[in-house]
Amino acid sequence: MKKSLGAKTLIYPTPVWVVGSYDQHGKPNVMTIAWGGICCSKPPCVAISLRKVTYTYGNVMGKKAFTLNVPSEKYAHEADYFGMVSGKNVDKFAAAKLTPVRSDLVDAPYVLEFPMVLECRVIHTFEIGIHTQFIGEILDVKSEESVLAENGSPDIGKVKPILFVPDARVYYKTGEYLGEAFFLGKTMP
Amino acid sequence: MKKSLGAKTLIYPTPVWVVGSYDQHGKPNVMTIAWGGICCSKPPCVAISLRKVTYTYGNVMGKKAFTLNVPSEKYAHEADYFGMVSGKNVDKFAAAKLTPVRSDLVDAPYVLEFPMVLECRVIHTFEIGIHTQFIGEILDVKSEESVLAENGSPDIGKVKPILFVPDARVYYKTGEYLGEAFFLGKTMP
Repeated sequence: MKKSLGAKTLIYPTPVWVVGSYDQHGKPNVMTIAWGGICCSKPPCVAISLRKVTYTYGNVMGKKAFTLNVPSEKYAHEADYFGMVSGKNVDKFAAAKLTPVRSDLVDAPYVLEFPMVLECRVIHTFEIGIHTQFIGEILDVKSEESVLAENGSPDIGKVKPILFVPDARVYYKTGEYLGEAFFLGKTMP
Repeated sequence: MKKSLGAKTLIYPTPVWVVGSYDQHGKPNVMTIAWGGICCSKPPCVAISLRKVTYTYGNVMGKKAFTLNVPSEKYAHEADYFGMVSGKNVDKFAAAKLTPVRSDLVDAPYVLEFPMVLECRVIHTFEIGIHTQFIGEILDVKSEESVLAENGSPDIGKVKPILFVPDARVYYKTGEYLGEAFFLGKTMP
């Protein structure tokens, strides 16, 4: 029996990602988001949603660029912190003792210590209620060599991405291997 | 040291969700997607991306409605199957022995056996390369009572949502509790 919980932003899984951007003075900033996802295969694009009041909104709108960083579970404190304070008032990289690296593809910084980053060029912005959606064309995915599997792809078991649980406002870890995609379904009639 | 992996749709975590829709004859269909995410808090909205060649694209465009169902890990075979065949040729509900339930809020069916569903009304469509993005206003979230925590919110440890790993094309499970959001970050300076 299904119970109605009301009209709310509640679905699982929801990601924990960190948006890297520069302000107009070139100061690097990071902000944690949970509203986003891949939105196109060709060109490869990811969507992130930002409210106009955030410092990151102005940065990304100004530079038409951002990075999308995947924190490992061991950086849960830093990622949580990046969602709690504004870069308008604080140098979050310095406070968290993390290192901004200038992307060589877009005008945005990424987090050296995090295992994965997407470098994105804004190709569309769409207004949806209180959030603006930025469509970022993924110009490159970069990954720490230490988390790569033998096939050259980042091993999610080593990247250890964090899941956000919206209503309960808690984080969960990534779990174990479940099965092969486009294969499990072959057992169906 | 970060290694360049190229321009591709690769980020973690990525969801496994099942889109429910009716065709013009009222036949219920389901299709598994990984390209999507919450995109606005007010009104509460979720974005899903579909290619025009899919049967679901025509259904959702026609009805301006869809459901977004969260399969548990025990339905990994069914979810995988729903991404492998087209509803144009097959009754996927019947083949998987799952039950379509007509939403009382939107013109779309949901999957009775899955633990969570969002009922969505399409309020925007955006063209992005080979995918069209549908913005669905979330009119209600419904959840099986058996997966609700004491606070009335779905317990992600009971819902057991599936993660998709794009490049490796495998599925992973949701893991353990990691910590409290908007709290862990308080330990930062």
